[in-house]
Amino acid sequence: MSGGVAGPGVVRDTVRIFDTTLRDGEQAPGAGLTATEKLEVARQLARLRVDVIEAGFPAASDGDFAAVRHIAEEIRGGIAIAALARCRDGDPQRAIEAIKVAERPHLHVFIATSDIHLTHKLRIDRQQALAEAVRWVRHGREQLGRDAEIEFSAEDASRTDREFLLQVYEAVVEAGASTVNIPDTVGYSIPSEFGALVRSVVDRVGRDATVSVHCHNDLGLATANTLAAVQAGARQVEVTINGLGEHAGNASLEEVVMALRTRPTQFPELGTAVETEQIMPASRLVSYLTGFAIQPNKAIVGSNAFAHESGIHQDGVIKNPLTYEIMTPQSVGLSGSHLSIGKLSGRRGLQQKLRELGHEMEGAALDAIYREVIALADVKKEVTDGDLLALVEQRVSEVPASVRILGWNVTSSLGGRTTGLVSLDVAGENRTAEATGNGPVDALFSAVDEALQPALGWHPVLTEYEIKAVSAGEDAQGQTLVRCRRSSDEGPGALIVSGHGLSTNIIEASLEGYLVAINKLHGAEINGLAVGFVGGYSSRAP
Amino acid sequence: MSGGVAGPGVVRDTVRIFDTTLRDGEQAPGAGLTATEKLEVARQLARLRVDVIEAGFPAASDGDFAAVRHIAEEIRGGIAIAALARCRDGDPQRAIEAIKVAERPHLHVFIATSDIHLTHKLRIDRQQALAEAVRWVRHGREQLGRDAEIEFSAEDASRTDREFLLQVYEAVVEAGASTVNIPDTVGYSIPSEFGALVRSVVDRVGRDATVSVHCHNDLGLATANTLAAVQAGARQVEVTINGLGEHAGNASLEEVVMALRTRPTQFPELGTAVETEQIMPASRLVSYLTGFAIQPNKAIVGSNAFAHESGIHQDGVIKNPLTYEIMTPQSVGLSGSHLSIGKLSGRRGLQQKLRELGHEMEGAALDAIYREVIALADVKKEVTDGDLLALVEQRVSEVPASVRILGWNVTSSLGGRTTGLVSLDVAGENRTAEATGNGPVDALFSAVDEALQPALGWHPVLTEYEIKAVSAGEDAQGQTLVRCRRSSDEGPGALIVSGHGLSTNIIEASLEGYLVAINKLHGAEINGLAVGFVGGYSSRAP
Repeated sequence: MSGGVAGPGVVRDTVRIFDTTLRDGEQAPGAGLTATEKLEVARQLARLRVDVIEAGFPAASDGDFAAVRHIAEEIRGGIAIAALARCRDGDPQRAIEAIKVAERPHLHVFIATSDIHLTHKLRIDRQQALAEAVRWVRHGREQLGRDAEIEFSAEDASRTDREFLLQVYEAVVEAGASTVNIPDTVGYSIPSEFGALVRSVVDRVGRDATVSVHCHNDLGLATANTLAAVQAGARQVEVTINGLGEHAGNASLEEVVMALRTRPTQFPELGTAVETEQIMPASRLVSYLTGFAIQPNKAIVGSNAFAHESGIHQDGVIKNPLTYEIMTPQSVGLSGSHLSIGKLSGRRGLQQKLRELGHEMEGAALDAIYREVIALADVKKEVTDGDLLALVEQRVSEVPASVRILGWNVTSSLGGRTTGLVSLDVAGENRTAEATGNGPVDALFSAVDEALQPALGWHPVLTEYEIKAVSAGEDAQGQTLVRCRRSSDEGPGALIVSGHGLSTNIIEASLEGYLVAINKLHGAEINGLAVGFVGGYSSRAP
Repeated sequence: MSGGVAGPGVVRDTVRIFDTTLRDGEQAPGAGLTATEKLEVARQLARLRVDVIEAGFPAASDGDFAAVRHIAEEIRGGIAIAALARCRDGDPQRAIEAIKVAERPHLHVFIATSDIHLTHKLRIDRQQALAEAVRWVRHGREQLGRDAEIEFSAEDASRTDREFLLQVYEAVVEAGASTVNIPDTVGYSIPSEFGALVRSVVDRVGRDATVSVHCHNDLGLATANTLAAVQAGARQVEVTINGLGEHAGNASLEEVVMALRTRPTQFPELGTAVETEQIMPASRLVSYLTGFAIQPNKAIVGSNAFAHESGIHQDGVIKNPLTYEIMTPQSVGLSGSHLSIGKLSGRRGLQQKLRELGHEMEGAALDAIYREVIALADVKKEVTDGDLLALVEQRVSEVPASVRILGWNVTSSLGGRTTGLVSLDVAGENRTAEATGNGPVDALFSAVDEALQPALGWHPVLTEYEIKAVSAGEDAQGQTLVRCRRSSDEGPGALIVSGHGLSTNIIEASLEGYLVAINKLHGAEINGLAVGFVGGYSSRAP
């Protein structure tokens, strides 16, 4: 049996996995992705075999609309594509436009139902909220037809008057909703109470619609609340890869899915369709593209999740593999093999190795990676799995380059200022600049800024910078992450983009990352960039 | 009322907070701390006002013994100091020796009770395990006297035959145990079942002993299981800062404590003594010293936990602060003030600012930081809170320097090899070396290695390297983390130490981190170093 369903035991009932990495996850500050990056994530989610991909919030911006539409056009194979919309004139129509080309469109409308939100935020009363909910659910059903999924969320459900909440769910189901979602918007429910809330909804509308939940992790209880909901009868769970999301994030897809898989006795006859071996590739891709690191002690996907250290623990594992491990590394896509790869492995050997690491590559893309592996093997003693993954990741993120580096030079010493010189091709024109700085990155980035300002009318402003060695040893590749905005673009709504660099020379890796960010800011991607915040259109909801 | 107890409502019953950051947390691969660093963490835990500090595993090594003893000697004010020991000849006596000088000693003995562990790991039967448990609990009670806390853990309790488990707990309580601990060693319990397990133990021995739990986070359920246990009658919880620990870690102190504090209606009349405003300083200190980053979406202490992005969310917060936030940043020690500090603030202004950020500094230590702030303000436009915290952290970690840098110089350019020259003072002797490399860090580290090898008989081997800018802007300070071992020390038991560097010049920051690690490896700290793994003595248990 594939990795897709729960372990032993009959599966009679599936739990629908609704992934909202590209919508709620992407709202996390700094996690913004370009349209191309969103499509890459969607493709990986399809390999992971989630049931629904919530691709974005089309009314938020033209860029968001375009990204959702592309995903809806491309992703097939039975996976539904969802879009979020507020229950107000304009949003649902835009969302429908974006997803109606999908094989399986899934409209997700929401409105707040708690008195706190109604009074202080929306400034309407309960009856108005109910009327809007019914109106837009009905509209969605009429527009998308009988087979589409129409989902309604009551934002801040966990703080909503119970009877009013049930009344709203009943009304929207009557109006055509096939799924009702219960968000724990503030993230402070605890499992026993959230399970009870879900049970009351299941009792009221569970016969006529799928009950769904959407949990936030502000007290570290998102996974537990989600599982309690499943035990209480929920059959859709809204989750994100790595628990990505605003604040403390959302319920982690990997935690929820692996809990269901490894504890079948606690969730009798329930399963999911997820291909769990695709969990690690999904986790790495999302972490890389969003620049959101995963801490070593993150459940399932943290770097230590399957590492061993203490003597007694190792002792136990060696004697009987069941002593401590409850899920195998292979089941989540961690390669068991630690064979390093070198020049002699050849193209086919590389392809096989990449396959083990979760990446299918062929043709020109495989050739390109192969050349880079050869070059790396010249300057580095050992090419590790981490090196290969870094090389693959670097390609995912390629953007059209209107600004290129022609040359650079830097000298630095203890106690002295650093001098750097850089030579760029800016949309066909050569520009050179020299600058001093506190250190080599400071000096060279300043030189780049000086070269760009007269040509573009702005220079990049660095908001974040980090480098991490991809493997041990001084000859390791450094993988950089920079985040930048334009100097002409300030304030909370400023567009911030990320750029990655990869090189055994940290200066080169730094410049590479800087140039990727510059090209994102400058190039054709600008129109396609999804932004987390544009004048109030985005929403944490539900 | 201070931040120390639950919000509104009468507190009739306290939940004892047993922090095991320095024992179970420190077992995480790579998290090893020197004796000095352990003492710093213990001091912060004391400010945090946990009830028990589990300071280590004295039988593991002489270094561990010494570290526990120092902490037991120094930490007063009503906080108990605990030490772990296996139920076998040698361990408990060693632990008693280490903690008997404490104001309030707390002996923590354990043995596995599940058939899986007994059969495959310990290779003894149930009766032998029970006999050992009773024997060493009795010994501890006799040695430490009537007022000491004697705690017994049944390792792998969640997979132990229920009736046998209860029998063991009864027997140890009769033999003198005042606390019985229920570990979910493999971390795969779910809250409803774990709560039921705890209830059965509370029913059996809860009148005569405190029932405690120790949860692991392999399915992301550690906090939820811990809270379910409290609801079932447990009155001690074993937790770590940041959920630090092996694999997916332990239950997070900050999540458990803040859940109890923010949901008093769910935990009626329960509270803890924790000073929650010390949570952020504790979190930062542990993250810094262990080199274990916290992901942005970590609950309570992640960098995004209190950040806002989406329009509707911001809208909600502005209109009414209760709309979305359930705990205030101030309640966990996040400073509300964003005033930057400059040369004109003066020494007193700096002291006040540091106090707001959770650090009490005065005298020579304050003078030193003040001088560094002045110097930084000369090369950087704005000195941020992050800058100040980084400067304070850098001092925490100072080690006696037998190896110092006298000078260095490096030149690097696109497409060329990099050449670096370094000049060191190695225990009084000048040594110079030059090297080429892929980039400046590669070249200079190689030069350092070349200079050290003949003098020390070994050179450092780099296992990890990363740099992160402490603030935005090209003039930002870079904070580096390196991990190293000695070239003469290989295999799984090799001693790996961390070193931090801090500078606006990333080369300088890199060399600084490298030198700290070198000095740790070389210097007087060697005897005091606590290691996570020494030939089978360490334990993941309980």
